[in-house]
Amino acid sequence: MQLPDWLARRAALHPARPAIIAGNETYSFAALHAWADQLAAQLAALGVAKGDRIAILARNSPAYAAVVHATPRLGAILVPLNTRLAPAELAWQLADCGATILLHDEGHTELAASLSETRRQGDKETGRGVPLLALEALSTQHSALSTQHSALRIDLAAPHTLIYTSGTTGRPKGVLLSVGNHWWSATASALNLGLHSDDRWLAMLPLFHVGGLSILMRGAIYGIPVLIHERFDPAAALHAIEHEGVTMASFVAIMLQRLLDLAGERTFPAHFRCALLGGGPAPLPLLEACVARGVPVVQTYGMTETASQAATLAPADALRKLGSAGQPLLPLELRIDADGREAAPGEAGEICVRGPMVTAGYYGQPEATAAAIVDGWLHTGDMGHLDAEGFLYVLDRRSDLIISGGENIYPAEVEASLLAHPAVQEAGVVGVPDAQWGQMPVAYVVLRPEHTPSDALAEELIAFCRARLAAYKLPRSISFAAELPRTASGKLRRAALREMEMARKSA
Amino acid sequence: MQLPDWLARRAALHPARPAIIAGNETYSFAALHAWADQLAAQLAALGVAKGDRIAILARNSPAYAAVVHATPRLGAILVPLNTRLAPAELAWQLADCGATILLHDEGHTELAASLSETRRQGDKETGRGVPLLALEALSTQHSALSTQHSALRIDLAAPHTLIYTSGTTGRPKGVLLSVGNHWWSATASALNLGLHSDDRWLAMLPLFHVGGLSILMRGAIYGIPVLIHERFDPAAALHAIEHEGVTMASFVAIMLQRLLDLAGERTFPAHFRCALLGGGPAPLPLLEACVARGVPVVQTYGMTETASQAATLAPADALRKLGSAGQPLLPLELRIDADGREAAPGEAGEICVRGPMVTAGYYGQPEATAAAIVDGWLHTGDMGHLDAEGFLYVLDRRSDLIISGGENIYPAEVEASLLAHPAVQEAGVVGVPDAQWGQMPVAYVVLRPEHTPSDALAEELIAFCRARLAAYKLPRSISFAAELPRTASGKLRRAALREMEMARKSA
Repeated sequence: MQLPDWLARRAALHPARPAIIAGNETYSFAALHAWADQLAAQLAALGVAKGDRIAILARNSPAYAAVVHATPRLGAILVPLNTRLAPAELAWQLADCGATILLHDEGHTELAASLSETRRQGDKETGRGVPLLALEALSTQHSALSTQHSALRIDLAAPHTLIYTSGTTGRPKGVLLSVGNHWWSATASALNLGLHSDDRWLAMLPLFHVGGLSILMRGAIYGIPVLIHERFDPAAALHAIEHEGVTMASFVAIMLQRLLDLAGERTFPAHFRCALLGGGPAPLPLLEACVARGVPVVQTYGMTETASQAATLAPADALRKLGSAGQPLLPLELRIDADGREAAPGEAGEICVRGPMVTAGYYGQPEATAAAIVDGWLHTGDMGHLDAEGFLYVLDRRSDLIISGGENIYPAEVEASLLAHPAVQEAGVVGVPDAQWGQMPVAYVVLRPEHTPSDALAEELIAFCRARLAAYKLPRSISFAAELPRTASGKLRRAALREMEMARKSA
Repeated sequence: MQLPDWLARRAALHPARPAIIAGNETYSFAALHAWADQLAAQLAALGVAKGDRIAILARNSPAYAAVVHATPRLGAILVPLNTRLAPAELAWQLADCGATILLHDEGHTELAASLSETRRQGDKETGRGVPLLALEALSTQHSALSTQHSALRIDLAAPHTLIYTSGTTGRPKGVLLSVGNHWWSATASALNLGLHSDDRWLAMLPLFHVGGLSILMRGAIYGIPVLIHERFDPAAALHAIEHEGVTMASFVAIMLQRLLDLAGERTFPAHFRCALLGGGPAPLPLLEACVARGVPVVQTYGMTETASQAATLAPADALRKLGSAGQPLLPLELRIDADGREAAPGEAGEICVRGPMVTAGYYGQPEATAAAIVDGWLHTGDMGHLDAEGFLYVLDRRSDLIISGGENIYPAEVEASLLAHPAVQEAGVVGVPDAQWGQMPVAYVVLRPEHTPSDALAEELIAFCRARLAAYKLPRSISFAAELPRTASGKLRRAALREMEMARKSA
């Protein structure tokens, strides 16, 4: 099904309304639309065509938003890269998606150049790197509103975005999100959270994650301004809420906690109607503090595969259902799968979701797709149960996923890095609770016979990982063990490992 | 595409929230859902199956709403009948759609019985009438919330409603609206008018018209209460707005005028945020009065074929764009067709619309469908132009459509009735301005040579029409003429006829 390009329609409906606000810069819907049009023309002139993957490595900025709205006009697929990843991780993703261009901002010029060089060396066929394009070169010439806006159409079935998530096996998977996934996610969010004519959404989460990116989609689809912060700064966030009319903002727990700490006893303004809290389970003290302080916290459970929110807990239920992720957004369907049948209320099982905001699958990985999506149901790998009223309780994130400051860390990925070191025979990684970050990864290592535990070796192993992994994924400690707890079939018993860690810490 | 049944999901999300309020009766989402479930079971027990047409002849009531939500659960198609139509018109529609059951309320028991009898005589094959079912018999036993709500799904492509509109040729056409048409219309309305958690929509328009029916869809999709009034009563409407928390209400011009008259100098409460004004062009004095009084009037241009609103004019633009119907709702596309090309700004042409809320066509009339929908564009037959900012101005409703008190009257239909009388040789009907109703139909008749004009004959002709037409369609006057103004090819020149009428009135 084809729809008119939503940004183009918003530009026609209310050209002068602010679409993007960042510091002193404000871009109207007409200006953002014209900018996106111009970027699309510039990219087309460089040979970008339908289906091409356009990677972007940049901090949050208005130019990022313009790129997000430009690529669908060419039928190109945007690949937002996580700027926190290690070069080796980024190089892998660039190669996997076969990016035809790498857009980057000034702060990532050197990294982009080295990634392109890595790609050149890796691509034995052509020996070419990834062409680079600085956002700054693209972003200075946007002109008046195009007169062609009425003719622009977008296909709901067309792929829009390719976002990598770490996989359970340690190999990242590129989640394909279609234009329609984003549309349905945005309308589902509005049907749940409402839509006010004075709404303004604050984007402090990275735009390379679906939590940040989806704010840009909602802004254009709803016709409301998005305030973009380059990164989370509690003082700037509080100022935006108190003095810049922000009505909605998306958080992960640590950000919201810092905001509350900074605000002290101050009352939040009445127009601030939604603190959307995602990125993993929220600590109960934080939720209680929000309720006590009248902060309209809306907990959400979501993932890249659902184009952001899948379930939310309304403020009215925040205390009554403390710890719940709420109910699935209309029209998403959610069920708990217990060994192939629907679980009874209270019975734990795998959380499965189905609906028009759910990804069609993983880029170039038909087997992973077939394993994850069965009869339209995405098996999230997360465990949970529904109570008698249909409220979701998430018990364990998928495959012992560790969520630290809103970032996902897969133990298998960290273990694979450790195992690449010649001294390491076995490695086990688990998340342990952390008051500030929610969770932190810690590692247990069994050395090969010829090696001896030492602090120096532990440091060497962490340095070894640093070359391969994003900083936030690095184990905060490495403990040496004679053996790791395993099942009879040799599978790592992570629960036992966590207990070992608890015992060690309290010892 | 399949979605979960939206009422079922709302019942799960907030079972206790009021869904329908009518006088002292309140039905929660859980109760409405259970009621719809029970109605569906009762209808299924009577043999109603997928694709069957279920006609309903009733005034506005909670039971009407329950039926609207019950029939999609069987895959049946609801045919809401206009209670103002003459028996002959209703009989024609029942036969055309091949209704398998006629639901009716107490007030329409006799009429329903006579329609069934007419159908029995008309159906030479089986000699059976249409089985009747009184709403009252169905509506007293609704029980607790079904536990099956999570499994209910609806297909966006499935036909949902069949609503007859008078055709340009005098033969009514049944507009098929799908589940998806209603969904997309409701979400488009929310993206335009916003959605507040305290919204309550007042339904005073007949539920058998799309303007009323669509309120029920929005209520269930948004999860907000709908207040149902059996008919428009200015005092009850004002009370609902002032004391029952109504935030949105749908009007035709005469209703809004009466409400303003009754309210006198009183100020409308701040929570009343949208007076949606449809049903034909609004008189400028009424719009000016709304603006002066701070009534948040939102003019809308729509039709059965677009599942209600197609374009709206926001209050902010009400004065600046007085007389405009505003801009098309996202994601509807609207263009002006001037002899097959897109008209320039300011240039008049036929209003065409395309989008997921637009009907797929007319029931059992492939030729009418093919004539009206070309390349996905519905040719409305209405004339209009867009200004340089893309605001729509409707110049003439389709084919000289007369809109009287929000009801559509096609001249051809009235003319056909007059021509059926043996004394009438030619007949011409036009609408003339009326301060109260917007427009009124008047007729010009050329008698056969053997007949002489007289007041008695004029009265006889009106009585003759009364047996065939709804009361609101009857000509308010019949003038006799020696000939009617016609083009060289013999086509009636309605503009000239209107001038004749103006001259006659001022004489």
